[in-house]
Amino acid sequence: MKYEKEYLDKIQKELNTAVLCDILDELGYRNQAMDGSLYPLEEDYKLCGVARTVLAYDVFEQPEAAYATEIEAVDSLREGDIAVCVNKSCSNGFWGELMTNAAIARGARGAVIDGAIRDITQIKALSDRFMVFARGRNPLDSKGRCLVADYDCPVVCAGVRVCAGDLIFADIDGIVVVPEEVAQTCIEKAFEKIAGENLVREALRSGMLLKDAFAKYGIL
Amino acid sequence: MKYEKEYLDKIQKELNTAVLCDILDELGYRNQAMDGSLYPLEEDYKLCGVARTVLAYDVFEQPEAAYATEIEAVDSLREGDIAVCVNKSCSNGFWGELMTNAAIARGARGAVIDGAIRDITQIKALSDRFMVFARGRNPLDSKGRCLVADYDCPVVCAGVRVCAGDLIFADIDGIVVVPEEVAQTCIEKAFEKIAGENLVREALRSGMLLKDAFAKYGIL
Amino acid sequence: MKYEKEYLDKIQKELNTAVLCDILDELGYRNQAMDGSLYPLEEDYKLCGVARTVLAYDVFEQPEAAYATEIEAVDSLREGDIAVCVNKSCSNGFWGELMTNAAIARGARGAVIDGAIRDITQIKALSDRFMVFARGRNPLDSKGRCLVADYDCPVVCAGVRVCAGDLIFADIDGIVVVPEEVAQTCIEKAFEKIAGENLVREALRSGMLLKDAFAKYGIL
Amino acid sequence: MKYEKEYLDKIQKELNTAVLCDILDELGYRNQAMDGSLYPLEEDYKLCGVARTVLAYDVFEQPEAAYATEIEAVDSLREGDIAVCVNKSCSNGFWGELMTNAAIARGARGAVIDGAIRDITQIKALSDRFMVFARGRNPLDSKGRCLVADYDCPVVCAGVRVCAGDLIFADIDGIVVVPEEVAQTCIEKAFEKIAGENLVREALRSGMLLKDAFAKYGIL
Amino acid sequence: MKYEKEYLDKIQKELNTAVLCDILDELGYRNQAMDGSLYPLEEDYKLCGVARTVLAYDVFEQPEAAYATEIEAVDSLREGDIAVCVNKSCSNGFWGELMTNAAIARGARGAVIDGAIRDITQIKALSDRFMVFARGRNPLDSKGRCLVADYDCPVVCAGVRVCAGDLIFADIDGIVVVPEEVAQTCIEKAFEKIAGENLVREALRSGMLLKDAFAKYGIL
Amino acid sequence: MKYEKEYLDKIQKELNTAVLCDILDELGYRNQAMDGSLYPLEEDYKLCGVARTVLAYDVFEQPEAAYATEIEAVDSLREGDIAVCVNKSCSNGFWGELMTNAAIARGARGAVIDGAIRDITQIKALSDRFMVFARGRNPLDSKGRCLVADYDCPVVCAGVRVCAGDLIFADIDGIVVVPEEVAQTCIEKAFEKIAGENLVREALRSGMLLKDAFAKYGIL
Repeated sequence: MKYEKEYLDKIQKELNTAVLCDILDELGYRNQAMDGSLYPLEEDYKLCGVARTVLAYDVFEQPEAAYATEIEAVDSLREGDIAVCVNKSCSNGFWGELMTNAAIARGARGAVIDGAIRDITQIKALSDRFMVFARGRNPLDSKGRCLVADYDCPVVCAGVRVCAGDLIFADIDGIVVVPEEVAQTCIEKAFEKIAGENLVREALRSGMLLKDAFAKYGIL
Repeated sequence: MKYEKEYLDKIQKELNTAVLCDILDELGYRNQAMDGSLYPLEEDYKLCGVARTVLAYDVFEQPEAAYATEIEAVDSLREGDIAVCVNKSCSNGFWGELMTNAAIARGARGAVIDGAIRDITQIKALSDRFMVFARGRNPLDSKGRCLVADYDCPVVCAGVRVCAGDLIFADIDGIVVVPEEVAQTCIEKAFEKIAGENLVREALRSGMLLKDAFAKYGIL
Repeated sequence: MKYEKEYLDKIQKELNTAVLCDILDELGYRNQAMDGSLYPLEEDYKLCGVARTVLAYDVFEQPEAAYATEIEAVDSLREGDIAVCVNKSCSNGFWGELMTNAAIARGARGAVIDGAIRDITQIKALSDRFMVFARGRNPLDSKGRCLVADYDCPVVCAGVRVCAGDLIFADIDGIVVVPEEVAQTCIEKAFEKIAGENLVREALRSGMLLKDAFAKYGIL
Repeated sequence: MKYEKEYLDKIQKELNTAVLCDILDELGYRNQAMDGSLYPLEEDYKLCGVARTVLAYDVFEQPEAAYATEIEAVDSLREGDIAVCVNKSCSNGFWGELMTNAAIARGARGAVIDGAIRDITQIKALSDRFMVFARGRNPLDSKGRCLVADYDCPVVCAGVRVCAGDLIFADIDGIVVVPEEVAQTCIEKAFEKIAGENLVREALRSGMLLKDAFAKYGIL
Repeated sequence: MKYEKEYLDKIQKELNTAVLCDILDELGYRNQAMDGSLYPLEEDYKLCGVARTVLAYDVFEQPEAAYATEIEAVDSLREGDIAVCVNKSCSNGFWGELMTNAAIARGARGAVIDGAIRDITQIKALSDRFMVFARGRNPLDSKGRCLVADYDCPVVCAGVRVCAGDLIFADIDGIVVVPEEVAQTCIEKAFEKIAGENLVREALRSGMLLKDAFAKYGIL
Repeated sequence: MKYEKEYLDKIQKELNTAVLCDILDELGYRNQAMDGSLYPLEEDYKLCGVARTVLAYDVFEQPEAAYATEIEAVDSLREGDIAVCVNKSCSNGFWGELMTNAAIARGARGAVIDGAIRDITQIKALSDRFMVFARGRNPLDSKGRCLVADYDCPVVCAGVRVCAGDLIFADIDGIVVVPEEVAQTCIEKAFEKIAGENLVREALRSGMLLKDAFAKYGIL
């Protein structure tokens, strides 16, 4: 599926992870939220885009031609993409300023890193164009510490399986993976639900007991 | 014990967790600080109120009449209360925007959640009326994942036993449980102590050696 | 080695942990970055100074003459120093406002605490003169909970051995220990490297593929 | 589905968790092995039976009529059953000697406890009739520390969803949950596969290279 | 309080941690069981004796006169004692074969180590005279890694406060600290209770439902 | 360096990890003991041989030609070798019965697995010829879960860097990596030291105070 930039911008602005999880629950997908160990660099980030996966592993010396696959992966990013990189150990700063610049130049919207990053200050300076969610921080270079094995392969990121093409939505509440096959349905239903939530909120704000609000609206 | 809103406001503004812990130490209550795993949504929160406990546990399907006790618990909140909710697993966002609105409407001042929350952005927008401290973040609905077993029962929250009626004080340093039976004494002594601390601070700032300051004031 | 205040200020302003790690890698020192469990009180802290170590351990009653070594350690701080304190358990707020004031009065620039701190709000108010990086938060006094065993002895802080006299550089990416014997070389090379990085950044920003940038500049 | 005692005995004796996982993989059930945190009381235990689930949670005072559901759950056990009890906190010895005796009297074959147990010596003395796998050990009584919420409900035990009626197979390698709907197929295929494995083993023992064995038999 | 060897032998043989916890619960001491992270070297150990505490901490170079306090502590052991040593980090094998031999020569009955040990094979060869419970294993010498700060001081061992003179009872279910002031009462009541438990066990073994057994005996 | 089988047998029988660590300390190699998270399948294992490293990482689908490197690695084992395999996640049983049989046929003496194993019962049945130390247990096949990236490369296993050719010594106290360049010296000195230790042991057993034994022999 292909998403226009404007559509991704609209989803990113108007939806949130909680409403997407509610719809995924309805659709029978109950384990699509990552496990809370990845954080946005800024609390107010909201990020939506298409997953492009990267799988890396720790090494303990510098292999020859170390960067071939990593470079290929980053250069293959396209407009609307989010790099979803798995390198669990946090033994090095897998993603940094240069990768961020290269990804922005390809049109990517952000990165979700199940691993550590570095150059945080410089990356945050680019927040309007690229948002990063990561597990940890580490100033050590990935050189001789980590190798990209493959990309666009399935990965498990913070506990959830991600395939290239899945829709990623991330905000301060967490990170949700919307499988490609239900993305369209899920987004449409989420726009509907979010409109309806205002009634309950207003009822509660005006003092209605939770018991009465639940009886009336069936939402908690 | 009943606290007037103005008194709670004054305690909240002028005291802090450190001075309360010092007084509790003096009174022989040495384990009243929660264990550092709960965080305020904003670093500058200071929150004081009366504990109202809620005990929840994980479930793995939606039981009938799931929300009865939870609704009762929230609707029973009164002015000056802090909801102290224990649902350790972080498997779902136990507390969210609707609960926050319902609690505010009852006059509650905040919530301390040994568990996960969701709708963080929306909750933060209500910081002037309601402050939340929590262990984790999770965009998944509690529906079919968690059940409220009881409320106003004793709980252990982040390592400290809390009973309904205990005084809770929370800030960026941590969260302190002041048992109801010593709350009055503790608060009075804390107001006294905090007045005295200025002398040492000023002495140190003007360059006095720590050795001499300790010899003179007996505080470190 | 003795560093002038102006020189430390310049290092602190212009360098960062990532570039120092890159140079240390080149020099064969590959494990000089602490393990990511210590955080700055503010995300934008950058701190450079000379390590002065403090080693503390948990106790479970108040010993006589408890504070002698702790007081001596703090009073011995000198201009340009960073107190590197190890008290792993986080069972108490080892470092607080009074210590901060005393350290500032001696000319120290900051503290790196492998342990917990308290009085965070008050310490943050002094950020322009003193920056603190710490593992945890705890409002409990160290009195009867922790004892300073020694200072200026070797310690292992967040996984890295630190000796008095080593250079410490800390920012949001992490904390680096530059051993005294390579500090001068390391800093000089870091100033050189940081000048060269701008070329790659600009090339990537102007749309050059990562593959071509790597072929041309040899940096990733 | 109903299993005769002799059939369960035969499965228990001749199969093992590894071969069952291989068959479940083939059938597309790839996450049916618990996570390695539960251990048998004796290394040579092999246990097969039908899951009967029990869901408990921590409490912090003794409720009235505390034991009603727990007693009902144990008294409802039938021949061939395995009690699968979830009480994650390990704050008390949830399962002990008396429960073991009561379960044996009902014909149950063992217990899998995602929680702590006590009376280990006495339980081990009954190994020929009842085998226990558990997460932890704790000599504290469950009285006033834990409450059974429900039984025969779905639970997640050491990371795997278990429903009453699923087949449980546990040995020193781990614990496998065979969903009721594929149990019959799975067991039949496992008996077939285990017969075929002897050829590879013998080939390797007689010195064949792994490369040649894999080329010939396609198993690794 | 002074215990004769024969009395300790009798307690050790006839009682167990579970029954002692039940009595301590009755007496209002509900947190006297260590947290399950210490293990006996052999599963069938049962050990009872008088706590003699040792408090150690990690160092990172060899101090002068390093062993003075450690030697004093071991040489001060007396008949009936159990060395309760706290050195949490497991960075070295704090207790080993030589300490075991020295302790046996003084009449000590065992050691409970909240830390690591080494020489496990040699220590197990002395099981009939000395039993060790420990957190971890480490072949590294304590020399230059750990220092004894004090002995006969209060310590917190695996989560429970222990004072010299408290009674320690350890078996495969866990380790219980019986405070000196209730030790006599506690032991007497435990001997009574253990006699009464046989009735329920026999009733259950002969097939009585748990419901009926509980109604009749009030024990679960 | 090449070790004869008889020499490895003699080292394995007469030395132990503790004495090797003491000698390595003397030689200035103070961090050669793995971190205590790997366990022998049987408590009485003692294993000595030459490290042959294997580096694996988690995958989430079955790649083509998945086993080529793994097969090559196992088939390359030689007499006297110990397979040191790193696959940290424990997401599958990386080493099992077939690998064990293949390794035995090549003359390998054992395996040290920083990861999970399966077929434990069958592997233990071969203990006289092959001993396994591992981090975890998992009945799931490695197929589609894990891939061997390389072998005979440097790895970090349970916290210690291991290169092919290093000497490995493992027993119940832990696992020691003796770097190839000091192996000969280290072994010779260990044989000398172990002879001397008997004197202290005997002195202590005959009742000498630790103080006097330390004064006389200088060992603790």
